Amino acid sequence: MKLLQETIRNIKPQNLEVRRQAKAHLDDLTMPHWAMGRLMDLAMDLAGMTDSLQPAVARRAVVVMAGDHGVAAEGVSKYPQVVTIQQIINFVHGGAGCSAMARVGNARVVVVDMGIASALPAEVVSAIISCPVGSGTANIAQGPAMTREQAIQSLESGIRVAQQLGSEIDVFATGEMGIANTTPSSAIYAAICGCSVEEITGPGSGLDDKARENKVAVVMRALVINHPDAKDGLDLLAKIGGFEIGGLAGLILGAAAQRKPVVIDGFITTAAALIAQALCPAVTDSMIASHQSPEIGHAVGLRHLGKKPLLNLGLRLGEGTGAALTMPLLEASARLLTEVATFESAQVSRG
Amino acid sequence: MKLLQETIRNIKPQNLEVRRQAKAHLDDLTMPHWAMGRLMDLAMDLAGMTDSLQPAVARRAVVVMAGDHGVAAEGVSKYPQVVTIQQIINFVHGGAGCSAMARVGNARVVVVDMGIASALPAEVVSAIISCPVGSGTANIAQGPAMTREQAIQSLESGIRVAQQLGSEIDVFATGEMGIANTTPSSAIYAAICGCSVEEITGPGSGLDDKARENKVAVVMRALVINHPDAKDGLDLLAKIGGFEIGGLAGLILGAAAQRKPVVIDGFITTAAALIAQALCPAVTDSMIASHQSPEIGHAVGLRHLGKKPLLNLGLRLGEGTGAALTMPLLEASARLLTEVATFESAQVSRG
Repeated sequence: MKLLQETIRNIKPQNLEVRRQAKAHLDDLTMPHWAMGRLMDLAMDLAGMTDSLQPAVARRAVVVMAGDHGVAAEGVSKYPQVVTIQQIINFVHGGAGCSAMARVGNARVVVVDMGIASALPAEVVSAIISCPVGSGTANIAQGPAMTREQAIQSLESGIRVAQQLGSEIDVFATGEMGIANTTPSSAIYAAICGCSVEEITGPGSGLDDKARENKVAVVMRALVINHPDAKDGLDLLAKIGGFEIGGLAGLILGAAAQRKPVVIDGFITTAAALIAQALCPAVTDSMIASHQSPEIGHAVGLRHLGKKPLLNLGLRLGEGTGAALTMPLLEASARLLTEVATFESAQVSRG
Repeated sequence: MKLLQETIRNIKPQNLEVRRQAKAHLDDLTMPHWAMGRLMDLAMDLAGMTDSLQPAVARRAVVVMAGDHGVAAEGVSKYPQVVTIQQIINFVHGGAGCSAMARVGNARVVVVDMGIASALPAEVVSAIISCPVGSGTANIAQGPAMTREQAIQSLESGIRVAQQLGSEIDVFATGEMGIANTTPSSAIYAAICGCSVEEITGPGSGLDDKARENKVAVVMRALVINHPDAKDGLDLLAKIGGFEIGGLAGLILGAAAQRKPVVIDGFITTAAALIAQALCPAVTDSMIASHQSPEIGHAVGLRHLGKKPLLNLGLRLGEGTGAALTMPLLEASARLLTEVATFESAQVSRG
């Protein structure tokens, strides 16, 4: 609990003076005013987040956290639970969607076992970070996902991953793998954003209408049985969360405490971001929303974070793929700050 | 005229059988069906355009064509005409927006003088491709921009640039520089898309409301005086076009004739794409729309091309910046086709 409390104490909002200086410089670039639009907004954000007019964004990691979910027993996913471990192996072999997208974003893939239900082969364990909190969570449709102690453990493990990578990474991208994890995520959205379960429970990996109706009922049951306290991030995580969701919330807090930008991916990592926000509202100042997922409800979560996504490409894979694809845009924003001439320096006439 | 006719004859639509094969492969990747959304659509496009299931996208050029416009005398731009040459010098020195964005997209910047009004310093001439059709166009508010012969010359120069670069470039991105060039572009949109001048004439590089009203009047005058034939691409280009717009239309045709994807940037390069489409409707099969500009009317032009843009980031600089930023998405789509495992190859269970 001490590590969590210290980390939260170290999180600061964006530096407004550095933001102002960044804006003054961007106003003066050899182009019509603010002609690079949202990339200029992002450049101001990066400056404010990192406390620097030369924000570092070159060294990147997509941290993919994995966990299993007892609620998978309720038939809320199209895929069997064994796919979690199969995909971890796929990540390690470099053949997954996130592997290919991380190459595009010039990012390392760091896989973290936060608590999957199956035993990993030794060759895989040696290639990942292993800090399982348990063998999958309990079924949230019947009771809490985990104990409050386990919730703290998952958060602090995520913080430690951020600390461990911190000396070699400038920007963190969040990713996840865990069959059934849109179900606890939907419960978290409903509890935190105060919207109806129907409104934020989507087909996930591809449920048909009937299976989605069952999923809605399961999410409702999880909320009724556990009645989490929407103001208490730890209570939310323990009752209706997941080990990888807790790990990602910790990673986000840990990145922000180091003044490093952290890129949110899709529906599930946004649930983790909502938990992090519940624990420490200032943490959103270090978050960048990468993309708008077609999973209904994602827009609700992003709005609650106060974030506008950069991409809208119908991505609904997760694994950090959308966050990885956003890395070139971060690079573009940083280059606007550092590489583009001003009217004076290039002797270009003003309008 | 022979080169133009031959080039148009060589342009083929996308290969539907290769598209089908690409789709079958993408359907089988280790992810929920079509979970990478528009990047999977783009992967099919790339396969169909290049006639290959391993579309080459590694070698990239942003071809920035520059030209001046007699209509600048009507006060339709916020910036003086001399900014065209000042910005070319900025491009050559690597300090412009397109310079920085091309680095993000891992693309070469190739600057082409299609006909600017000022004499370029020798050090700049040696760093660019020089094929000026004239010293800026005539004022379209008073008569045709150029002769029909000059229109052919600008198109064929663009085709030659595509041919010259073809052996070392897989993907072309289009960019432009030319003070006042949103004015002929607006005229082209109005003539081709059959919409009102008001609807497609925006503030360009930053006109206030009053100056924009004058610009609308100038575009109307250009259309009334020249009455271009909306079905005749050459007539449109000669009467209300520009040298860089013709060069870009030629580049687009030349790229398509080589079965190479060509990425359209903002408002002006879309006008060039509309001219290319008027000359050869099949050419749109090789086009990729990079982004949605906030310049009103851009959406109208993209719709006429039948294209949906990938990015929407409020970019309104031109210079090929949006096209350069789309290169990582092309790379992502190609990697989906070539690097992601299938359910079989990775032994992942299906849903």
